Amino acid sequence: MTEYAAPTSEIRFALDHHAGLAEVLALPGQEDLTADLVDEVLNQAARFADEVLAPLNRTGDLQGSRLENGVVVTPDGFRDAYAAFVEAGWNGLPAAADHGGQALPWLLNAAVHEMWQAANLSFGLCPLMNQGAATAIAAHGDESLRSRFLPALVAGRWTGTMNLTEPQAGSDLGAIKTRAEAAAGHYLITGQKIFISYGEHDLAENILHLVLARLPDAPPGVKGISLFLVPKFLVNPDGKLGQRNDLRAVSLEHKLGIHASPTAVMAYGDGGGAVGYLVGEENDGLACMFTMMNEARLGVGLQGLGVAERAYQRARAYARERRQGGHAIIDYPDVRRMLLDAKARIEAARGIAYFAAAAVDKARHHPDADERAWAQAQVDLLTPVVKAWSTDLATAAASLGVQVHGGMGYIEETGAAQHLRDARITQIYEGTNGIQASDLLRRKLARDDGAAARRLIDTMADLDGALKGDGSADAAAARSALADGLGALRRATDWMLATYPSEPDLAAAGADAYLDLFGTVVGGWQLARGALAAAAAAAA
Amino acid sequence: MTEYAAPTSEIRFALDHHAGLAEVLALPGQEDLTADLVDEVLNQAARFADEVLAPLNRTGDLQGSRLENGVVVTPDGFRDAYAAFVEAGWNGLPAAADHGGQALPWLLNAAVHEMWQAANLSFGLCPLMNQGAATAIAAHGDESLRSRFLPALVAGRWTGTMNLTEPQAGSDLGAIKTRAEAAAGHYLITGQKIFISYGEHDLAENILHLVLARLPDAPPGVKGISLFLVPKFLVNPDGKLGQRNDLRAVSLEHKLGIHASPTAVMAYGDGGGAVGYLVGEENDGLACMFTMMNEARLGVGLQGLGVAERAYQRARAYARERRQGGHAIIDYPDVRRMLLDAKARIEAARGIAYFAAAAVDKARHHPDADERAWAQAQVDLLTPVVKAWSTDLATAAASLGVQVHGGMGYIEETGAAQHLRDARITQIYEGTNGIQASDLLRRKLARDDGAAARRLIDTMADLDGALKGDGSADAAAARSALADGLGALRRATDWMLATYPSEPDLAAAGADAYLDLFGTVVGGWQLARGALAAAAAAAA
Repeated sequence: MTEYAAPTSEIRFALDHHAGLAEVLALPGQEDLTADLVDEVLNQAARFADEVLAPLNRTGDLQGSRLENGVVVTPDGFRDAYAAFVEAGWNGLPAAADHGGQALPWLLNAAVHEMWQAANLSFGLCPLMNQGAATAIAAHGDESLRSRFLPALVAGRWTGTMNLTEPQAGSDLGAIKTRAEAAAGHYLITGQKIFISYGEHDLAENILHLVLARLPDAPPGVKGISLFLVPKFLVNPDGKLGQRNDLRAVSLEHKLGIHASPTAVMAYGDGGGAVGYLVGEENDGLACMFTMMNEARLGVGLQGLGVAERAYQRARAYARERRQGGHAIIDYPDVRRMLLDAKARIEAARGIAYFAAAAVDKARHHPDADERAWAQAQVDLLTPVVKAWSTDLATAAASLGVQVHGGMGYIEETGAAQHLRDARITQIYEGTNGIQASDLLRRKLARDDGAAARRLIDTMADLDGALKGDGSADAAAARSALADGLGALRRATDWMLATYPSEPDLAAAGADAYLDLFGTVVGGWQLARGALAAAAAAAA
Repeated sequence: MTEYAAPTSEIRFALDHHAGLAEVLALPGQEDLTADLVDEVLNQAARFADEVLAPLNRTGDLQGSRLENGVVVTPDGFRDAYAAFVEAGWNGLPAAADHGGQALPWLLNAAVHEMWQAANLSFGLCPLMNQGAATAIAAHGDESLRSRFLPALVAGRWTGTMNLTEPQAGSDLGAIKTRAEAAAGHYLITGQKIFISYGEHDLAENILHLVLARLPDAPPGVKGISLFLVPKFLVNPDGKLGQRNDLRAVSLEHKLGIHASPTAVMAYGDGGGAVGYLVGEENDGLACMFTMMNEARLGVGLQGLGVAERAYQRARAYARERRQGGHAIIDYPDVRRMLLDAKARIEAARGIAYFAAAAVDKARHHPDADERAWAQAQVDLLTPVVKAWSTDLATAAASLGVQVHGGMGYIEETGAAQHLRDARITQIYEGTNGIQASDLLRRKLARDDGAAARRLIDTMADLDGALKGDGSADAAAARSALADGLGALRRATDWMLATYPSEPDLAAAGADAYLDLFGTVVGGWQLARGALAAAAAAAA
């Protein structure tokens, strides 16, 4: 069987009909990007994912990254693959031209990220972090930081990390203890961070750590956290690498999955303080880090989508090949049910994620301020949905993938089990899915009294006319299901908004179910849109 | 934290109020068994599970069983634990006194099995297989086989295995190719079997393999399969071990979980033929093996229940200990939701499994033939539900357990991830859960035109009066939910029976959802019964 074949036609369909590629191509700055060029990018990415990244997935799992005398050695093939990735310019695809990026739409970046993550989740986590770090530095770093660090980070010659968690500070970042003290032209950082993805590795010549820390006079809690750029090697004014900074990887975690991705415990300042540079304003670090985190949450949603697709492809191939009782097992209704269940949800998750990705581009570049604001409201609303709904799907689809294989699915050599082990992290990192549900309720729904959610629901309800007009039995079924879903979502939204002010714990206990409903309805709406588009194409 | 604490009061409550322990104690042959003695057995089992088996769970996972020069070495501590298990008489708990068993109810065996499986799933699989093999030999073996092999198997000095699967014959047993040829006083077996749990190990001095094979003149398909007892060491007429039989473990599988349980590829007859003895009639092997398989399916359901309870206990302990934002995380609504969701389903699964276990005892020993028949009908109907519903729960609860731990859940040292890896097999072996759903539809529902299912639904509907009589708001809520559930189950049952004859594939595509509904309604009925019993106890 093919290890992985990037589903370029499904992806192109989703770009056109779920995300609205035409609108994104019409944005200022994308004058040179044609639909043909989009196809060319997708095809090149597919080749890279299929031929370079996918074959390293199993060896990466078996070998893992290992820490030897303070140096992390990545699995065989990862160094070459990363070098080729950088050489091809994939790392800088969405970044601004000012910083050496290709200034292509974030939507297109999302599409190729799905492929990286499907092909090799452990590998894909590295550029995901790099891009998020670059976005945060571009948005909040001063000109000296941007010019010194961004070109190499955008190119991927240097990589980026995200240092939030400490042993006592997980979901509660207010409990961070890592300290920063002002020095001559920089700060000195001291403390320990855990769960740092790609905190140390041998893929690139330098690593830029974005570290949350507390200044001596900082107010308590989350309002007293600042963000610092702490490079592994200091960078001289001429851009060349200088001395090794006072930071090190203490240990790597032994994890359920993503073995190739080194998850480090990082020690800063054991020798007196690691040199760091303030990003943004003092005590405004959490807001700056959220720039990275929000982008990373969409990225982790794409990881979920990718690993779900990969697990589905493997299960489908096995079901076509494996024969029992004189038939390929894909002919058995229960196997077909499992595969179609996964496939339908994958298409829905892709529709939600790409729709949100297009909104990222519109929020940044649409000429009309109202459109930018509405696009940003959709990004804000859908970010927790993309993250949690896609990653819940990832584990479910990977588990179905194991099940389709029967006993063979439980044998590691088959490969299905790795997808389950790998997928499981996506529900946890970048804010657990419980945190996403809480974010949807508290920050995204309650803060504007449901305005954005209701506007999106109304937008979805507009599809009713087209479904009615189609006249087919399939469209009638979709119309009825969409009406039911929208009705449930309206009722649940009203209940959440009515309940949250007086009984926040009661509302919070329902937040997970609310997010799941939200994703199901937006995903179902996207499937209905896709069905109409497919019917129109078939008729034409 | 305590590694595992067998929930003896929940178990005793389930015995009394979900299973109807009093009726089982009233069966012929149980005159000496008192409620106090039941408690004593439960307490002794709990001590063994907590103190002997649970501490070996993590080391068993880390070391795994390994094959060295044809010999399987189990992880440190397993040999001593198994010897103590046998010495205490646990292996023979439900077997007839004729064969050296303790002749205690299968219900009580189910309760202690929950503990073995929760404490150490890899270990627990061994006695589960032993007991199933003993039941099959007792039911279908002739007197010479029973007297020669059963006492040691019942005691656990020898262990038993189940050899069905071959590379080309998984769910489709009709494709079995292993051959048997008649010889002087025995048969010679030749072929390869895969996925043989405890196919080779160092826990006991002999292993009795129950092997499905085909005689030269056998009809094709499942009607041409015979069952053979093939001992690792031949047994002399004096009961002493004789020469090594012509069979061996070729390799062990590298699995996602249950690393301590050796899963072997077995080769029979490489040297000309392994000596085997026919169990039951020629060509009636599948029916004989089903005696073992049905018992093992209930056993695997108990595995699912056990690992779910274990994962829940670990997550609850962590949630009580781990603090974020000034609170133990168990105070957060979403963490509470996850724990309560798992807890409620665990109680429901226990209620279903123990109810079915009590029916096993009634089917065997009730003095009234009609009661025996009705009890057997309930066992038949509920076996696939116990197997699939409890094991779907196992993976779900273990996954929730990982999630409650956040990032720590993904780190292997924490232990939560092992439960997820271990639990995942229970949905697959002893017939995948898809096979269980198919069994429920085709064999259990369609064959008697829904008579047993409808009778059970009517039985459950009888609770309505008691719920109405209770008068509390909680009872009213349970009453309404039970009525909804029973209504849905009746409609789904009617639909299945109406659809299956003309559109079997359509019905089969819904079989998984039907089984899930069946388990949810029976489990909900048990929770409602439990709530009434608890309210009555509180009032008294």
